[in-house]
Amino acid sequence: MKKDRIPEKSVITTTPFPSSKKIYVEGNLFPEIRVPMREISLNDTVDAMTRKRTPNAPVTVYDTSGPYTDPNIEINVHSGIERIREQWILDRGDVEQQDRFSSEYCNERLNNEDLDYLRFNHIHKPFKAKEGGNVSQMYYAKKGIITAEMEYVAIRENQKLQEVKQLTKQHPGQSFGASIPKEITPEFVREEVARGRAVIPSNINHPEAEPMIIGRNFLVKINANIGNSAVTSSIEEEVEKAVWACRWGADNIMDLSTGKNIHETREWILRNSPVPVGTVPIYQALEKVNGKAEDLTWEIFKDTLIEQAEQGVDYFTIHAGVRLHHIPMTAKRVTGIVSRGGSIMAKWCLAHHKESFLYTHFEEICDIMKAYNVAFSLGDGLRPGSIADANDEAQFAELETLGELTKIAWKHDVQTFIEGPGHVPMHMIKENMDKQLEVCGEAPFYTLGPLTTDIAPGYDHITSGIGAAMIGWFGTAMLCYVTPKEHLGLPNKEDVRTGVITYKLAAHAADLAKGHPGAQYRDDALSKARFEFRWEDQFNLSLDPELAREYHDETLPAEGAKVAHFCSMCGPHFCSMKITQEVRDFAAKKELDSEEALEAGMQEKAKEFADKGSELYL
Amino acid sequence: MKKDRIPEKSVITTTPFPSSKKIYVEGNLFPEIRVPMREISLNDTVDAMTRKRTPNAPVTVYDTSGPYTDPNIEINVHSGIERIREQWILDRGDVEQQDRFSSEYCNERLNNEDLDYLRFNHIHKPFKAKEGGNVSQMYYAKKGIITAEMEYVAIRENQKLQEVKQLTKQHPGQSFGASIPKEITPEFVREEVARGRAVIPSNINHPEAEPMIIGRNFLVKINANIGNSAVTSSIEEEVEKAVWACRWGADNIMDLSTGKNIHETREWILRNSPVPVGTVPIYQALEKVNGKAEDLTWEIFKDTLIEQAEQGVDYFTIHAGVRLHHIPMTAKRVTGIVSRGGSIMAKWCLAHHKESFLYTHFEEICDIMKAYNVAFSLGDGLRPGSIADANDEAQFAELETLGELTKIAWKHDVQTFIEGPGHVPMHMIKENMDKQLEVCGEAPFYTLGPLTTDIAPGYDHITSGIGAAMIGWFGTAMLCYVTPKEHLGLPNKEDVRTGVITYKLAAHAADLAKGHPGAQYRDDALSKARFEFRWEDQFNLSLDPELAREYHDETLPAEGAKVAHFCSMCGPHFCSMKITQEVRDFAAKKELDSEEALEAGMQEKAKEFADKGSELYL
Repeated sequence: MKKDRIPEKSVITTTPFPSSKKIYVEGNLFPEIRVPMREISLNDTVDAMTRKRTPNAPVTVYDTSGPYTDPNIEINVHSGIERIREQWILDRGDVEQQDRFSSEYCNERLNNEDLDYLRFNHIHKPFKAKEGGNVSQMYYAKKGIITAEMEYVAIRENQKLQEVKQLTKQHPGQSFGASIPKEITPEFVREEVARGRAVIPSNINHPEAEPMIIGRNFLVKINANIGNSAVTSSIEEEVEKAVWACRWGADNIMDLSTGKNIHETREWILRNSPVPVGTVPIYQALEKVNGKAEDLTWEIFKDTLIEQAEQGVDYFTIHAGVRLHHIPMTAKRVTGIVSRGGSIMAKWCLAHHKESFLYTHFEEICDIMKAYNVAFSLGDGLRPGSIADANDEAQFAELETLGELTKIAWKHDVQTFIEGPGHVPMHMIKENMDKQLEVCGEAPFYTLGPLTTDIAPGYDHITSGIGAAMIGWFGTAMLCYVTPKEHLGLPNKEDVRTGVITYKLAAHAADLAKGHPGAQYRDDALSKARFEFRWEDQFNLSLDPELAREYHDETLPAEGAKVAHFCSMCGPHFCSMKITQEVRDFAAKKELDSEEALEAGMQEKAKEFADKGSELYL
Repeated sequence: MKKDRIPEKSVITTTPFPSSKKIYVEGNLFPEIRVPMREISLNDTVDAMTRKRTPNAPVTVYDTSGPYTDPNIEINVHSGIERIREQWILDRGDVEQQDRFSSEYCNERLNNEDLDYLRFNHIHKPFKAKEGGNVSQMYYAKKGIITAEMEYVAIRENQKLQEVKQLTKQHPGQSFGASIPKEITPEFVREEVARGRAVIPSNINHPEAEPMIIGRNFLVKINANIGNSAVTSSIEEEVEKAVWACRWGADNIMDLSTGKNIHETREWILRNSPVPVGTVPIYQALEKVNGKAEDLTWEIFKDTLIEQAEQGVDYFTIHAGVRLHHIPMTAKRVTGIVSRGGSIMAKWCLAHHKESFLYTHFEEICDIMKAYNVAFSLGDGLRPGSIADANDEAQFAELETLGELTKIAWKHDVQTFIEGPGHVPMHMIKENMDKQLEVCGEAPFYTLGPLTTDIAPGYDHITSGIGAAMIGWFGTAMLCYVTPKEHLGLPNKEDVRTGVITYKLAAHAADLAKGHPGAQYRDDALSKARFEFRWEDQFNLSLDPELAREYHDETLPAEGAKVAHFCSMCGPHFCSMKITQEVRDFAAKKELDSEEALEAGMQEKAKEFADKGSELYL
């Protein structure tokens, strides 16, 4: 087992993406808001015949990478990133900074000198809602209040629109983009949050996180799980994994650490994470009782919730839907209970022959959540772990319980989303979505995959990416990534990158299929670059510019090949794109478009083409 | 540019899969038939408490790897693999061996001493149907004849059934498998082939290929493209790539070579390929006119068809659907014409202002095809090359022409399938399938992906795997793989493996979704192994045992870890599978299943569990 070590600045990746610059869009209602986006500059289109250059407008994309990719910001993991939301929170006047942490366990850890070597050195005293108050975004939304967070996410969801606005300002009179997408307004965000159809995870003690929204009327989001286990990984690696996951596009991360020093690991991650962070508090509670599920108590669990809420965790996975009478429904399954939280609670329920304390104390949990704006991620402890167990009685019985709990959470104005499977063959995926919308009142769905077959360990980012894209299209708001190591081991950095990009492309495929107005412009820009042999632009517009370039250069490494009008796949004679361009160029030269050329029906022109054309094709 | 070299025996991969043995199932109608399958032996299930061992029946899977994975067969690439179908073909009494090759070009190459160093040394004189005859499988099928090929594929499609039969013979009285799947009979195969709904690609000059069937009432198949281009790769590499692709599961390969020595490369590939081989003859025809599309003629193309038919190519991609009046429909596209064959023919049509010779000579092409049983793969020369161009006028206009041509091919009893896109967002995929079934009379559909977004070069095996799984579910019979190098370069061996496995899992996900009776048993066996911590069995049952094992061992390399009841993901305390088993074991120990235990409602039992259980969980 490795010894934990705190992160060195040098392990953190901070290089900006190629040909990209960070831009910030200001708010209207809240001028202090600065929403980060990534602007990718493009090369000119060069006409093959006339050599005339036509500029291509830069493309602006959603940016989850945080300050790490802004060269103007100095990164110091030992002090954490900027607390951008702190003033917004204070301005609302409904929170109080506490003198000390409310969790006993937290204070024990803070006072333990043996842990000094691991400690994050700028720990802030926690904020909490004033006595009896509610600081959840849902609470504000229902009161008709538009928060800074709401305007922030509205701006963020309108990437394409922002780009068009920006360009129109810079170049008045010119027109950009074929169609301006429908604008997402702060008021629309407020309505969706009030209705429970969207969640803005934003604990008042995690002011470092850039607000984002989870809901099916917004861009599909992805979550990356990180965290060590008892047998592998260190704090240092986990912080870099978090930054790395955000770099490639994770909208959220979950810290699923189960090893020792969970508390300290989490502090480092939170203070350096530009995206909301979720956890499964029962994992840490179990560590506190040395792994004996039957020794868990409500008191230990409650202290863990408060400990984590005061550190700044933005959402908690809580498996309150695993009820005593559900457990026998899993007895004949091929793979029983595969959720860690679900199996822990099942064991507790059987051992005590009692309803789980998560279920019986659910309203008390709501009271904790609303004092910090922690959101519920209602866990699917009985999700299927194999194709054979998909959509079975246990799974759907739990889902109905989650529906009941959603209504209780909403009564407390606590933001809530619902976790979903798992392993589901394609023809059974839609039923999951339909049932979830129905029984959970349209609360956002957050699914793990689903994996569409069990037979490809090592490729489960793909078996699940298929299911994820489909369920995203059907309405799932956030997709929890699966890495190539699923079922086999803990993901390393490269696995995290592969998992994130796979899910990013699945989410994007879902946005396209849903007809999201802010989706297809990136495909179009990349395809145009591809067709015009702007290789650099093709790389730079892609989700993973480094890998695209690396693959290209494997067979044609010379710089000249990046302006060549062919690639190693077909060679110069066989490039369809090149031939198509020649056909078009021919038409252009004749000052006719191809259609007119044909309609004119000119055998003569055709002959001319054959005679002169041959020069073009050398 | 590398110099071509002939393959050395040592570059060919021949290792059998772990814990696997090749078995052969004999025919009934044709006792000489020996259908290869791979039998994976499994470890016993060991009861965690009693240590009682229960054997697990071996699992038999579809095997495309040919003789290369049979240690009893000596492989010599210089003489080629066994010509298993030769006697079946001769027994039908309707072919004649020719004295010489009918293609002029072929004879030139054979007589060119400069090519001796590249030559395959055991060239067989070609077979051809007797004057005016037809040797297509469709011709026999329509006559009511069941061929050896038909019985072969029927046996091959019934993997699970074969397994059950085999086991029942070995262990009379025992029952194996929850349900015996519906049997696919040789007569059913004949009906589907006669109806045009399925194709058995099996050129009489490629007797080395193990018969397989392409049709939507059978398992979904995959094709792997190999072949060099003018700028990369050698014969040696291509032969190994072919064997390698089959090893991982390719049901077909296409040799898309466009470099020099296409003829010799193809000979080596055919003589060593255990699966049917397709080509795009226009590529070679274009080489013969030095890459000048406008210089192509019907005569050159016809000679190329005969040359390739006599070598043994099993199906030809022919872009006869690209008609003159379709070309202007592509003028406003973002990516024009992206099919190589399509762009070549478009250029020819424009240059001559004539209908393409593929279209005008289509019936003559049929006459060539039927004399050798070459199947049509009617090419989609106007498929969309970007999301923006999906399902447009050009694409569907061409599809309608392909429908007309299908009917002409069927009139000649020539087996036919139809190529499909390309780049299509998820919500537009089903329309492709529905329209293809409608206009092409249910001829099998064979699609390239489709890619569901354009923004992830480097990951296009995944963007397209999503679309492939979906369209496979909707009814596509064969999926043409896409490798990670798509749009960027020529795939190397590792890319071929990744592409094949990705498409294998997509095809399998489609089979599951279609409810194919011979699909889910492998998922169930693997999931059972996973749940019981039979790590070796989990690896061995997977599509890529090597990679699964490698990933597992990255974090827990010790041999002991492969019998451990946890992995590095969660560590021992947090393994849900372990906890579930403990819960079940507890119930079993009490001679009660969990349900009864609960229904008895025993607080007392629960107490006992807590008291004694703690010992189990150490």
